[in-house]
Amino acid sequence: MSVPLPRRGRRSGAQSTRTLILASARKLFSEQGYDAASLRQIARHAGVDAAMVHHFFQNKEELFAACVKLPADPREVLADVMVIPLAGRGAAIVRTLLTFWDSPVQPALLALLRGVVSSRAQAALLREVLSKRIIGAALADLPDDGTAGLRASLVASQLIGLMVSRYVLKLEPLASAPHEEVVRVLGPTLQRYLTGPLD
Amino acid sequence: MSVPLPRRGRRSGAQSTRTLILASARKLFSEQGYDAASLRQIARHAGVDAAMVHHFFQNKEELFAACVKLPADPREVLADVMVIPLAGRGAAIVRTLLTFWDSPVQPALLALLRGVVSSRAQAALLREVLSKRIIGAALADLPDDGTAGLRASLVASQLIGLMVSRYVLKLEPLASAPHEEVVRVLGPTLQRYLTGPLD
Repeated sequence: MSVPLPRRGRRSGAQSTRTLILASARKLFSEQGYDAASLRQIARHAGVDAAMVHHFFQNKEELFAACVKLPADPREVLADVMVIPLAGRGAAIVRTLLTFWDSPVQPALLALLRGVVSSRAQAALLREVLSKRIIGAALADLPDDGTAGLRASLVASQLIGLMVSRYVLKLEPLASAPHEEVVRVLGPTLQRYLTGPLD
Repeated sequence: MSVPLPRRGRRSGAQSTRTLILASARKLFSEQGYDAASLRQIARHAGVDAAMVHHFFQNKEELFAACVKLPADPREVLADVMVIPLAGRGAAIVRTLLTFWDSPVQPALLALLRGVVSSRAQAALLREVLSKRIIGAALADLPDDGTAGLRASLVASQLIGLMVSRYVLKLEPLASAPHEEVVRVLGPTLQRYLTGPLD
């Protein structure tokens, strides 16, 4: 077992600069949206040099992920789903979400979900992640007939409902249902939202 | 405009007794569940006479509703839904929920939803309301083939997802979609959860 080094002034200075940048980023991302808020603006708001932002965060995506405390890179999780042909993606999405939640990252995901629902700023941040990063990527290959946006928010609504009822409210019997049962009952819903007739 | 009377000692004494009873009720309802927690236990926990509980709350249901701060009596809201034949109830449930939310009670409902997701005790309380009062009543006439419980929690999952994504996260285009569009796209999902094949 390694003995932790005593904290130095420099270390805690760096920590507080990082915290300052994160606070400014959260504020600007939620006020202006992910696209509009620039790294330069965030640096200026935090009162630091733009190079300092790059010292702590490789790019805007990494800064954003740190803001919402995502326990994993959404693109990696989505990669598993995107290789599934669209016709079977409804079930695949449910299976991926359950595997992701019923894993050691569950506490982090619960904290994220709680924060998002209870804080307006966190909700604005997650709306950005959901619309721009997660849903956008997952639906990139949907036919563009003008329904893609609605389909995306319908998928999100059932997934969010599954997360809240199974993991937060723990509504039985859904909360204890085996993965394959949940996939069987919710898969067709998501499949219809993705590719079926909406009426 | 009427001038408010100055607060008297007796008034604030009554207020704090009521608050004490509510705090004990919240604790016992969430620890033991609605059925197991008795008014007598709640009174004892609050250090007041059982008659005092009845002085403030007509019955256990009323005390419970005050605990979770429901902005309306679920049975009254449900009454409109229960007169709809089961075959058309999916759409009716979505329509009732939207009418209820897009009304002056929305801030109270938002506060309830935020509290439920961010606090474990509030979640336990709402689980009780949902399972015992709301879902139980709404599904009373479902065929009893062993799937009623699962059907109920699936209905709850999509409704909760609709509330969180439309009213908390404000995910577009679902957030601004007219009622009838939401009814058209979500009605079939709820109808399948209620009466359709689950696979």
